[in-house]
Amino acid sequence: MAEHNGLRVFAPATVANVSCGYDVMGFAIDSPGDEVVVRFNDSFTGIKILSIHGDPDKKLPYETAKNTASVSGQMLLDEIGYTGKGIEMHIHKKMKSGTGLGSSAASAVAGVFAVNELLNRPFIRRDLLKFAIEGERIADGAVHGDNVAPCLMGGMVLVRDSHEAEAHRIFIPDGLHAVVIYPHVQVLTKDSRAVLDATVPLEKHIKQSANLAAMVLGFSRNDLGLVQRSMTDIIIEPQRAALIPCFYDVQKVAQEHDALGCSISGAGPSIYALFANSIKAEKAAVEMSNVYRQASVKHDVHLSPINMTGVKIV
Amino acid sequence: MAEHNGLRVFAPATVANVSCGYDVMGFAIDSPGDEVVVRFNDSFTGIKILSIHGDPDKKLPYETAKNTASVSGQMLLDEIGYTGKGIEMHIHKKMKSGTGLGSSAASAVAGVFAVNELLNRPFIRRDLLKFAIEGERIADGAVHGDNVAPCLMGGMVLVRDSHEAEAHRIFIPDGLHAVVIYPHVQVLTKDSRAVLDATVPLEKHIKQSANLAAMVLGFSRNDLGLVQRSMTDIIIEPQRAALIPCFYDVQKVAQEHDALGCSISGAGPSIYALFANSIKAEKAAVEMSNVYRQASVKHDVHLSPINMTGVKIV
Repeated sequence: MAEHNGLRVFAPATVANVSCGYDVMGFAIDSPGDEVVVRFNDSFTGIKILSIHGDPDKKLPYETAKNTASVSGQMLLDEIGYTGKGIEMHIHKKMKSGTGLGSSAASAVAGVFAVNELLNRPFIRRDLLKFAIEGERIADGAVHGDNVAPCLMGGMVLVRDSHEAEAHRIFIPDGLHAVVIYPHVQVLTKDSRAVLDATVPLEKHIKQSANLAAMVLGFSRNDLGLVQRSMTDIIIEPQRAALIPCFYDVQKVAQEHDALGCSISGAGPSIYALFANSIKAEKAAVEMSNVYRQASVKHDVHLSPINMTGVKIV
Repeated sequence: MAEHNGLRVFAPATVANVSCGYDVMGFAIDSPGDEVVVRFNDSFTGIKILSIHGDPDKKLPYETAKNTASVSGQMLLDEIGYTGKGIEMHIHKKMKSGTGLGSSAASAVAGVFAVNELLNRPFIRRDLLKFAIEGERIADGAVHGDNVAPCLMGGMVLVRDSHEAEAHRIFIPDGLHAVVIYPHVQVLTKDSRAVLDATVPLEKHIKQSANLAAMVLGFSRNDLGLVQRSMTDIIIEPQRAALIPCFYDVQKVAQEHDALGCSISGAGPSIYALFANSIKAEKAAVEMSNVYRQASVKHDVHLSPINMTGVKIV
């Protein structure tokens, strides 16, 4: 079969660790995102990665047991005891790893979603979460669903329990718009985790958890004032900000443009800011970008509504 | 004026530290509760406490600056620069302090609510919260609104910020019913605070805060399964359980009767359990009480719906 006969899926980038929701809140944006193409192949069994595009440094593994896309797909096959034709996989990376935009999560979701579609959906969409979380774990070493869940389901997602793969899309008002800025510096997730204290002062725990609950309540009620008061991070952000060039300057500009919240995307170095509408977001994006331009920090800017679809066939 | 011409208010008992909502979630029950009577008195200025009933050990102070009921009322007078007739206050305690049912909070709320009513409502109800929190602080030494807020507003309340007196009633399904058991042992709030570690492991913070947000979401969506999975406390309860006789035995019985959640009420020693309806609550109450009866622990049992009214004129 030629590649054009394959099944192609797109999995969007995601912002995880949304402010007070470290490891539990994430949302999807429209672009960038990864694509995965799958098709049946009689010449082997199980999953084989035949090509990886967009990985100039050849960092990503072809080995089925090591690539997040094939691991999640293979887990699905194992779960149903699949013994049919082999499945070849072609991965098109559209975002680098280490940007804080859920690159490995997007591949994990794309892989298992594509395999599920190819097999005519043995699972409903939300039941793919456990496979995607396991795929993500291969890349990251940690079990956390706040990238894979919004990548799979779209929208703004609260992950109650990553080990149980329990996640909930929460209601959000129409029109929310995100600015995501990726400064071209390298921050590895494991380094970003290493700077974190193993404990949290009780008072900060109380304040942060109240804000998380209030943020969910604010979104649910379309009370953006409440969202804005709640979208802060007094625990993780202060420990990681130093890893990111000009973080507080960029954040200040976002806040001056009435951002609902602005913090570190995932493990960084990307910075996200969320706005009530695209007009505010577009104005803010220009000024946030200017901070980096003036500091001679190379960077990319992404402007996007919250992606409400999640992974999809394209 | 005779006492029967006074204005009498009732302020309900409250369950604070609701499971994963330490210092931020509380709800009101119908009884017990405190009553406060106020009336004008020409013979002095400001507030004077003229009688305190239901305090056999004479522990509660008459001094205006030291009793939670008069402190909250006096703060209101100070805020509006009140220079009118004196206000005499009569306090009818219907619950002891140190039970974990928000005794001092009820007095603080009753005091300021009564004064506000007597002056023909210079403030709307929710704006009394800051005065009540300050009154509560006199008794407790800590600023926390998870007793006074539900006592004032009724219902199930999320306190986002006690210092800013920002609290939100959250939607809860009809019919919820609480069992509250008060074992006759003394646990002082300050002792109960002293056993707590100053820090929380990061992993527990993540899990507990996700559960808090999920509990709020579960109530909002009438998803009692989600409420039940979320209503746990992995941080505070394990540290305080030893202060309360037979805590885990009572909790186990509640859970066997399908409690949505069961944990320590406030700083203890009372134990609360929340149920989807009164039938389950009534059955559970008998068995929870039996645990204490068999262990020869004297105790009181309160059965109540969530009080949706809060403090009121009676």
